[in-house]
Amino acid sequence: MRIGVPIARPHQILCIGLNYRDHAAESGMAVPDEPILFTKSPNTLVGPNDDVRIPRGSTKPDWEVELGIVIGKRTSYLESAEEARDAIAGYLVVNDVSERAFQLERGGQWAKGKSAETFNPAGPWLATADEIDDVFALDMWLDVNGVRRQNGNTKTMIFDPYFIVHHLSQFMVLEPGDLINTGTPPGVGMGFDPPVWLKPGDVMELGISGLGAQRQRAVGPR
Amino acid sequence: MRIGVPIARPHQILCIGLNYRDHAAESGMAVPDEPILFTKSPNTLVGPNDDVRIPRGSTKPDWEVELGIVIGKRTSYLESAEEARDAIAGYLVVNDVSERAFQLERGGQWAKGKSAETFNPAGPWLATADEIDDVFALDMWLDVNGVRRQNGNTKTMIFDPYFIVHHLSQFMVLEPGDLINTGTPPGVGMGFDPPVWLKPGDVMELGISGLGAQRQRAVGPR
Repeated sequence: MRIGVPIARPHQILCIGLNYRDHAAESGMAVPDEPILFTKSPNTLVGPNDDVRIPRGSTKPDWEVELGIVIGKRTSYLESAEEARDAIAGYLVVNDVSERAFQLERGGQWAKGKSAETFNPAGPWLATADEIDDVFALDMWLDVNGVRRQNGNTKTMIFDPYFIVHHLSQFMVLEPGDLINTGTPPGVGMGFDPPVWLKPGDVMELGISGLGAQRQRAVGPR
Repeated sequence: MRIGVPIARPHQILCIGLNYRDHAAESGMAVPDEPILFTKSPNTLVGPNDDVRIPRGSTKPDWEVELGIVIGKRTSYLESAEEARDAIAGYLVVNDVSERAFQLERGGQWAKGKSAETFNPAGPWLATADEIDDVFALDMWLDVNGVRRQNGNTKTMIFDPYFIVHHLSQFMVLEPGDLINTGTPPGVGMGFDPPVWLKPGDVMELGISGLGAQRQRAVGPR
């Protein structure tokens, strides 16, 4: 039985880059002074166990287990991170699938490497904010073909969910249903020496404590 | 009488950066090898004569008259620029309003400086593709307080509309209604010495031949 996406298509998918200290290090990039914002096309959303399709011309497809925030109400110019609590409807697991050559070698902005179809599996469920005991202490993990690749915890985030929502609300109006991918812990394919890229037939399994698990098969281009 | 936005809210607003040779030069940036892609929040769309609201904390608000492309059908992996003709529903005037400090001094990615509310006036009308004689020869202009600031023509674009749609279709699935801002000619505020930034009370008037004209008043933050 297929499990669909547990949220409606959002008005926008916002993503925070380099938000775990060790992931910034493995990417060879400096720890940022403030959240780095980029976006994904909303039509990248697929169910938690749907196939992930490697795009044509791809040479560096990669995985990223992330905590996703779903916005609960129209939000603008929050006065404090504390106020952001009321703006968050809940949390879910996302795989912020990325094509590193498209992201990093095609003009300086990252959008080209984040928006291929199927590049944002989400779910299996949305946990409402009150169902999460401590969003600052969630284990997260990702295996490829049974090998543990990512193993982290939200406690090593540089900018926490409340900080992020407060920060983004200074630059734009967030709408109910907007999805924010909050960054990934160490262990992405790009971080290995030599790098490890997804290939057709690979199986990704990933999850976050309290938020359930996903399983995707990588498949070749259309 | 207020004129509204002549298109439905798009699934995404895609933007091409530095797409006129002279604008790249005035921005102090190299002419790109391929289109630079960034995005705007869809809720930035407002009518062609609505107020443009300068966001809180803004120090460098700026204007950009641009040719907007509206996608007409689901589009993916086009095989040629020629094929892109059939994917375009039409064209309209957009003002790709930008906050340069948010865009260029806040983390390296440009999204923070492009998505404040009211930052994408569009219209007054959508011209269907067949109504435009030659998309490669459209005059475009923008005045601030009656002073001509931008004065260009689509013939000096680096990447033309068909090239852009073909190119983007390699990285993502374009949907009917998706809006693509195709870049701005020289004369943005950032390009003057010293720079000229918008301030409350300023009036922008802008247009493109065959696509009509816009008029916005800049107002202070909420």
